[in-house]
Amino acid sequence: MTANNPLLDIQTPALVLDERKMMRNIARLSERMQKLGVSLRPHMKTAKSVDVARRQLEGGNGPATASTLREAEVLFAAGVKDILYAVGIAPMKLARVLALRAAGCDLKIILDSTEQAEAAVAAARGAQIKIPALIEIDSDGHRGGVAPNDDALLAIGRKLHAEGMLAGVVTHAGESYNAAGRAAHIEFAERERNAVVTAASRLRAAGLPCPVVSVGSSPTAHAAQNLDGVTEVRAGVYVFFDLVMAGIGVCDVDDIAISVLTSVIGHQRERGWILIDAGWMAMSRDRGTANQAVDQGYGLVCDIDGKSIPDLIVASANQEHGIVALRAGSSGKLPELPVGTRLRILPNHACATAAQFDRYHVVPQAQGAAMIQWSRFSGW
Amino acid sequence: MTANNPLLDIQTPALVLDERKMMRNIARLSERMQKLGVSLRPHMKTAKSVDVARRQLEGGNGPATASTLREAEVLFAAGVKDILYAVGIAPMKLARVLALRAAGCDLKIILDSTEQAEAAVAAARGAQIKIPALIEIDSDGHRGGVAPNDDALLAIGRKLHAEGMLAGVVTHAGESYNAAGRAAHIEFAERERNAVVTAASRLRAAGLPCPVVSVGSSPTAHAAQNLDGVTEVRAGVYVFFDLVMAGIGVCDVDDIAISVLTSVIGHQRERGWILIDAGWMAMSRDRGTANQAVDQGYGLVCDIDGKSIPDLIVASANQEHGIVALRAGSSGKLPELPVGTRLRILPNHACATAAQFDRYHVVPQAQGAAMIQWSRFSGW
Repeated sequence: MTANNPLLDIQTPALVLDERKMMRNIARLSERMQKLGVSLRPHMKTAKSVDVARRQLEGGNGPATASTLREAEVLFAAGVKDILYAVGIAPMKLARVLALRAAGCDLKIILDSTEQAEAAVAAARGAQIKIPALIEIDSDGHRGGVAPNDDALLAIGRKLHAEGMLAGVVTHAGESYNAAGRAAHIEFAERERNAVVTAASRLRAAGLPCPVVSVGSSPTAHAAQNLDGVTEVRAGVYVFFDLVMAGIGVCDVDDIAISVLTSVIGHQRERGWILIDAGWMAMSRDRGTANQAVDQGYGLVCDIDGKSIPDLIVASANQEHGIVALRAGSSGKLPELPVGTRLRILPNHACATAAQFDRYHVVPQAQGAAMIQWSRFSGW
Repeated sequence: MTANNPLLDIQTPALVLDERKMMRNIARLSERMQKLGVSLRPHMKTAKSVDVARRQLEGGNGPATASTLREAEVLFAAGVKDILYAVGIAPMKLARVLALRAAGCDLKIILDSTEQAEAAVAAARGAQIKIPALIEIDSDGHRGGVAPNDDALLAIGRKLHAEGMLAGVVTHAGESYNAAGRAAHIEFAERERNAVVTAASRLRAAGLPCPVVSVGSSPTAHAAQNLDGVTEVRAGVYVFFDLVMAGIGVCDVDDIAISVLTSVIGHQRERGWILIDAGWMAMSRDRGTANQAVDQGYGLVCDIDGKSIPDLIVASANQEHGIVALRAGSSGKLPELPVGTRLRILPNHACATAAQFDRYHVVPQAQGAAMIQWSRFSGW
């Protein structure tokens, strides 16, 4: 493949997407959710691409999760209607939420305080447009959410229900990213389930509705054994995977669907360094594997065909320079990679690295098909 | 100012630029360079904005440094002609270099190997367009460059000179960012000067020309005592400054000209957390102060007027969530900041944080003037 590799024509650094691996990742989680009998609501925060969304979302336009209103606006314009904006609502953003709902988008928000519920209710009354809201539940002490047994749960629930706006409960086991191994992820999945099912039961016992019971993170979505009482699962990074996910055992390195294409621009042979034109502006500053069993630096180095080179990592990074070296303790030999050699770097964190680029250079599934570009959007 | 603050109308998170502080930073370095009798060639990698460049560059269009060919292309289109592309050239990029030169841009490249010099010479011959090149000198073991006393210097110099393409020498004391205090920066500045002046002398002694002798980093540019033999100084982050620069004593926290505007979206009172809508997607993953005397987390928290709140930092970050807390060991009290409160976060690293946004919301110098937007560009 190397000789006439179309990647040789692309200006570096550039973001490359292996469609075959992506489709395999999508199929894997989709089949798993079907077997468990729950709906999948993929998170758009990782790919931020209408082209990727078409392939992730059920029927091309099915339920989606967004991390920004920009994501919701772009996806709604592309035909996606059922969107959960899964970051606690800031009152100033309610005007944009109302605009989307008025246009026909079934946008739902999340919140975890009576202040937010009051702001949402006031905005909804003012516009005469209901805003379905899910109450965020804290299942692992990671960031937002009320504890499932907190009295605030019922207070918020009543405020929302009085306006016909209580849509359910939602949680995210963000701490599962910091735990390695299937057993740990099974436990986090059960904590997610237990937290939202407990909260849903309390709401229902108080005479309040709770149609949606939403859980999710990529590690727990791939590990959950029992989703009784859960109606939907959210996951984001699974579509591409990355070294962090490989490091905690959710995927193999070979499943990682994106890489940064780069060129060798120099050598410091006495120091064992190869310099490349992918620095932190291309890789992002994410060092998510720094505290894992295997620290991958700013990324794992592969040849132009995507085959990893033993023990070779981006050991450090300046804005537009990456310093490639053997990992500490390696007994390997630094390969001879002349100036101009193209390499591909697997990222620590797909969401962060992809965000540094405005497009994907897609290696299509179909053997021999020409490369295409898919655009990415960004901002809020 | 708070009551009718125009920042209250901006959707969060957003990047705010205080023009008055920026102009003060620009004037400070510009005056310093005038006193030292050298030319300043500001680096466009930090702001990536034509509007900022107009204010940084001498006469609005003076000499500039670029970290990507995209920067050179955008700035040339805006009227900037004298541009140094200061990342070791990858042979595949020579076609774009030639295109810029053919269009009238006085673009210069840098390189540190005979392979690169041969590629540049071959491309120049093919197009019948000379490409002025500076030889990169390693002054501190930070990344690329030949040692000033390396035989390779003369070999590269001869190859370039045979084609009339030898333009000079260039170095960058990247390690100065890791050293705190004026004395250390003075020493790094002298190492920069000594390295390039040594290299220039060797080239000249061998009968080769060396018109340009270029040094620079923001810490050394503000510390250099003697620039004898140096013709120009480059600096980038000085235009905005940041917490890393404040942490090593190059500026005060009050000099930092950019901040991320954010909204409070929740609380975890038992844990002492305030949640905001500026996560790492807004702040970047840069943790440049992590190893400094004062670790600023993902940024220092200020009120909407830009006044810092004692000991309050963004202690951790998810993609779209920042967790604000008192710094470890603080005896302070967490302020009461209701949902919806607007805050401004000073960044660790201006280049990395600014790169997460597509525009600046500018607070103009002129008292009472309306806010404006300046666009940013990105990519390679």
